[in-house]
Amino acid sequence: MVLDAKRADIGNTTRQYAQLLDADTGGPAADAITINPYMGRDSVQPFLDTEGAGVFILCRTSNPGGADLQNLKLAAGDLLYERVAALAETWNRHGNVGLVVGATTPDELESVREQVPDIPFLVPGVGSQGGDTEAAVEYGLADGVGLVNSSRGIIFAGEETIGRGDDVDTFAAAAGDAARRLKRRLNQHR
Amino acid sequence: MVLDAKRADIGNTTRQYAQLLDADTGGPAADAITINPYMGRDSVQPFLDTEGAGVFILCRTSNPGGADLQNLKLAAGDLLYERVAALAETWNRHGNVGLVVGATTPDELESVREQVPDIPFLVPGVGSQGGDTEAAVEYGLADGVGLVNSSRGIIFAGEETIGRGDDVDTFAAAAGDAARRLKRRLNQHR
Repeated sequence: MVLDAKRADIGNTTRQYAQLLDADTGGPAADAITINPYMGRDSVQPFLDTEGAGVFILCRTSNPGGADLQNLKLAAGDLLYERVAALAETWNRHGNVGLVVGATTPDELESVREQVPDIPFLVPGVGSQGGDTEAAVEYGLADGVGLVNSSRGIIFAGEETIGRGDDVDTFAAAAGDAARRLKRRLNQHR
Repeated sequence: MVLDAKRADIGNTTRQYAQLLDADTGGPAADAITINPYMGRDSVQPFLDTEGAGVFILCRTSNPGGADLQNLKLAAGDLLYERVAALAETWNRHGNVGLVVGATTPDELESVREQVPDIPFLVPGVGSQGGDTEAAVEYGLADGVGLVNSSRGIIFAGEETIGRGDDVDTFAAAAGDAARRLKRRLNQHR
């Protein structure tokens, strides 16, 4: 299970959030979590220190506003999301760091993959957001490890065909069909 | 009440988060919320659209890692946190936008205040983090509006004097004393 929680906070609070990854402390025992890098390393450290749990750092997100900050050009010549990818590598002491890089900007997905060949990506945006499935598979995986995500494209598949409020079984079947279709499309590109 | 939740997500999810500001939809009816700008404008829009609720955008945070991304120099010559302050001004259509600028870096607090004279600040870091109380008051307020925050410095005041696990009334009294002391210190600088 991936907690797509996009967390990060100062030390005291982020230590509590990191317990989300640990069933022993009442968390849901997730396998991984997404985190937001804007507050810097110490805001993320307790997640990084949870060995065995994946920490996917927002790098180049799939939403329209993703470029507002992430594509800003730095004085050193790189873009902000490229700097985040570089920082993520230096933060990856326990081999549990990944990056969130959207499929809606496949060229950038490719360039981040070239920059950090060994880090798994979580690739959102292949469903409702219309991202590039082939690029998601080609660049998302590192040694076969990575995640390609569609949420609304699967969960709300039933709305397109049968409309909201229709019976639950039909709605669930539509979601199942959408998930299987995506799986086939992804496997075509492996 | 300020929800120091540091939220932001893609459209569908962030719309749900924005309901945190609205008691009618089951939220706690907070007066304001803190949000993280890394995902850009659309990740914040539903908060901005909640007129009457304050939206404090993380700009220059008080934690040690705050500088990791926020102080990166952009190709245009400004720093990332200064760009966030500029973006926040353009996002402020309903007059409900504020900035989070920490008291631990008073020079930067002063420079952001010069850049955006009319936006209220939420100024963390004056308690346990050792920030500058005078700067927090001098630069935090815009037309007398703004928030200076101490959390651990008040909540855990009792631990310093009486130790964890001591009786609740003494612990609460220590917190009350700490809050009154901070209030006096802040008012000295008004």
